[in-house]
Parts: sequence; C-alpha cells; structure tokens
Amino acid sequence: MTEPTAPLGWHHLVELHGCDRAALDDLPRIEAALLAAARAAGATVLDARFHKFAPQGVSGVVLIAESHLSVHTWPEHGYAAVDLFTCGVSLDAEPAVALLQAALGATSTSRQAIPRGRSAG
Amino acid sequence: MTEPTAPLGWHHLVELHGCDRAALDDLPRIEAALLAAARAAGATVLDARFHKFAPQGVSGVVLIAESHLSVHTWPEHGYAAVDLFTCGVSLDAEPAVALLQAALGATSTSRQAIPRGRSAG
Repeated sequence: MTEPTAPLGWHHLVELHGCDRAALDDLPRIEAALLAAARAAGATVLDARFHKFAPQGVSGVVLIAESHLSVHTWPEHGYAAVDLFTCGVSLDAEPAVALLQAALGATSTSRQAIPRGRSAG
Repeated sequence: MTEPTAPLGWHHLVELHGCDRAALDDLPRIEAALLAAARAAGATVLDARFHKFAPQGVSGVVLIAESHLSVHTWPEHGYAAVDLFTCGVSLDAEPAVALLQAALGATSTSRQAIPRGRSAG
C-alpha cells in the first residue's frame, strides 16, 4: 500500500492565532469543532477525550482509525495548537483546518506537514 | 509564567525504528510503556485511550495536564511514532524517550522538538 520511499504517515501541525478567546475556553464548542474536523477530513472516529482546565484552556484528543487529532488551547493568548496525524494519504487536512479556523475565529493560520516514519523495505 | 518570546509549548516528535515487532503489536505493553513514559517525564495523567488495529498496529493517546503523549505503531515496519506535547518547560522528554526506546527495543531513535504557539503579548 505504501510506496517504498513514501513516509508512513503525515503529521499536520496547525497554528491558529487570533482566535475568539471565549471559544477557546468552551469545551463543548471545541469538542464539536474537533469532531466535525475529523469528519471533514474523512476520518473514522474511534474515541475522544476532552478536558477543561482551571482557570482556562481546553485539551482534546480524538483517536481515529487513521491516527489522531488533537487540540490544546491558550485562551489568554488567543491560540490553539491543532494536530492531525494520518497514516496513508487518504485524509484531506484542508477542509478540517478550514472548519477549525472558522469555528474558532482564527485570524492567522499556519500549517506544516511533517513526514513520519519510513518503510522497513 | 511565559517569557514573551518563548513558545507556549514544545512538541517532541520521536521516531523509533528497528523496534521489536511483537512489542509494537502488543496493546498492554504499549499502554504500560506510554503511561510509564508519561510518569518518567513528570507528567500528570488525566486520561488515556488505546486501540488495537486489525491485522496489526496499536494507537494510543494519553491526555496529560501538560498536553498529550501519543503513539502509533507499524509492526510491519518495526516503527513507532511517538509524540510528547508539553506546555511550559516543566517536563523532561529525555527519560520518557529512553524508556520507550528500551521498552520497544528500538535500534534507531531520532527526535525533533518543535516550538508551538506564541504569546499574544
């Protein structure tokens, strides 16, 4: 299934800055957005866990058949760190990132895609 | 708490190659190793979820007070992708990586630390 020279997975690291600070502290909203992003990427959700921190901030991880999504928010900085780790090339990160950007009101978004792993031959 | 120019978090991407292939397909062993790695890093574990794939492979995520750890294994390639995402500088990735390397029998380990997020000022 995997070309010998292709990485085994792609890891998208997404930086969302200038977000709506109330949204970043709203667990149900973050959870709904991350699960919607998983669906938008074409992922199969296996399990999900979210946590609300005191005094502020939300973390969440979604285990998907294709690896995972995660989010960590810093409401005081208007920042959310989002990861989309996928094995294979079947997932489309673009609509997932666009959905999260809109849901959190990000004014600045950047993304890097990092190759993970190599075939043992 | 955070210096204005410091990143909000550090994300360690760890590549473990040449691992024991049976270990990579052993969910209880992977789970025990990742939780032990979390403790070795000084993390506070909030929740954890693991999944065994057919025909092979294990994924796991551990939600910690400092962000998350994750693992995804490809037994057929002797490879495990490990992430340790930490906010602040209080966690020590080195003992966590050493523990996982030993637990999975990795013969080749590489790690990159990526800064995540910036202060809103």
